[in-house]
Amino acid sequence: MKAVKKVTWKEELAAKTLRIEELIKTYLPKEKGFQKTIVQASNYSVCAGGKRLRPMLMEETYRLFGGDGPEIFPFMAAIEMIHTSSLVHDDLPCMDNDEYRRGRKTTWVEFGYDMAVLAGDALLTFAFETAAGAFSDTRHPERVGRAIQILAGKTGMYGMIGGQTVDVEMTEKPMTEEQLDFVYRLKTGALLEASMMIGAVLAGADEESIKQTEYAASLVGMAFQIQDDILDLTSTTEILGKPVGSDEKNQKTTYVTLHGLEQSRSDVEKISRKAIEVLKGLPGENEFLLQLIQMLITREK
Amino acid sequence: MKAVKKVTWKEELAAKTLRIEELIKTYLPKEKGFQKTIVQASNYSVCAGGKRLRPMLMEETYRLFGGDGPEIFPFMAAIEMIHTSSLVHDDLPCMDNDEYRRGRKTTWVEFGYDMAVLAGDALLTFAFETAAGAFSDTRHPERVGRAIQILAGKTGMYGMIGGQTVDVEMTEKPMTEEQLDFVYRLKTGALLEASMMIGAVLAGADEESIKQTEYAASLVGMAFQIQDDILDLTSTTEILGKPVGSDEKNQKTTYVTLHGLEQSRSDVEKISRKAIEVLKGLPGENEFLLQLIQMLITREK
Repeated sequence: MKAVKKVTWKEELAAKTLRIEELIKTYLPKEKGFQKTIVQASNYSVCAGGKRLRPMLMEETYRLFGGDGPEIFPFMAAIEMIHTSSLVHDDLPCMDNDEYRRGRKTTWVEFGYDMAVLAGDALLTFAFETAAGAFSDTRHPERVGRAIQILAGKTGMYGMIGGQTVDVEMTEKPMTEEQLDFVYRLKTGALLEASMMIGAVLAGADEESIKQTEYAASLVGMAFQIQDDILDLTSTTEILGKPVGSDEKNQKTTYVTLHGLEQSRSDVEKISRKAIEVLKGLPGENEFLLQLIQMLITREK
Repeated sequence: MKAVKKVTWKEELAAKTLRIEELIKTYLPKEKGFQKTIVQASNYSVCAGGKRLRPMLMEETYRLFGGDGPEIFPFMAAIEMIHTSSLVHDDLPCMDNDEYRRGRKTTWVEFGYDMAVLAGDALLTFAFETAAGAFSDTRHPERVGRAIQILAGKTGMYGMIGGQTVDVEMTEKPMTEEQLDFVYRLKTGALLEASMMIGAVLAGADEESIKQTEYAASLVGMAFQIQDDILDLTSTTEILGKPVGSDEKNQKTTYVTLHGLEQSRSDVEKISRKAIEVLKGLPGENEFLLQLIQMLITREK
């Protein structure tokens, strides 16, 4: 009898990430035609790497509720396009003015300011085009319709873009606890909520479960962002792959400046425990999803 | 017996425009919450006026095919939001660097560069959120799904944004006839095609009619753009409400520089006659739509 090698959780995570990378690539636009600069700029941005956390949370939530159709795939690509689009515009000189991201030149540095504005627009639009493609291959058009509504709602001015607005406006200004909570819930949380809710909706989860999923996702977003603040203060540039101490340098209000390091650490723990508790109460099981969320919160980079 | 006053075509146009203005307003986001700057910037941009041509073409095409449901309304608002979003980003310093539009300060001048980038993003996203709202109020979810696909496709990198890309890249460079045709078809034409096709799709037109509608719309877009070039050369700033001679000043390749004024005038006439001929061949009638297209092409501003 051959020995069966047990796959570790980390190997499973790596394999799933790779599979998502491949999946996203199949949805990318073709680099041809007179307008190929914009297609190149879009693909350059999407292919810059990253955890692919949002599509992963989406698919795992879909599996949790027993989803097994093809309509999840375009949405997985779409949410990553939207996330990337927001990074492309965030990096612009008139916003964060960042020249590097994940060790590569940012889109505006590589393709020019004008092309980066257009690439962000193009990716945002292509996300909705891609998601709407799910209509061609589903037995549940009403679920696809609702998923598009969620995708747009959580992206827009009452979601991610709304959070980004306040974050930009409050740069170098002190924020109240209420304002910071707003920015975290919207800028970071909204797209994670979209990811998990769309998984639930497409799998046909009941209304109460969709609501609980949204709640769990908002907790995950909050814990994720607080952990980000902690790492900016306690990690090293080497481990994190980006400059640490930038919040302090920019005199940014963070969860840590408002509540102190010790309290922040204990709150991350508490919030993430609550998120896992909520997910365990759902009708369905997905051990990988629970481990993924645990990892996000205890991560060191 | 009371004398019945005959409503002129111009009065009918004015009344319809006003009704569309009111309709769009009902879909605008509420200016409240921490992120209200972005909502104000979005609404400022949408309320800057304009011909409201795209929603009007959409509704009239919908009526042509006998459409009478409520699902057209959110799409009428959505297409105007997308058009506005593109103007907000076009005016940015890194693009056309325009400080005034229709006699008012452009969005970036009024709200800042960063807020104008975000306002364009917010409007683009809100357009899809608004359009997806049609799912809640339709007996034809598959038509709504297809309309969203068309909306995104004609907006994105293979539509308006693709045309804008080439237009920006070729600034101050000579364009070939083929490149100019590409820019006109995409930058101007694509959104007009979306407008009329969505009207046809939502009304339940057959495939051949949808195709013919797209063709007619592309002709309208081409004639509209050539007329724009002619007016830039022959009109006065007073009549046009914007500086004339800007194409010449910017050494821009236009239809008129490539083909001369006389040929351009005769082509506008020819293309528009063809557009009207195609529309007359469709199963349905809408005299107002034909007059509207005639007006667009013979307009003096």
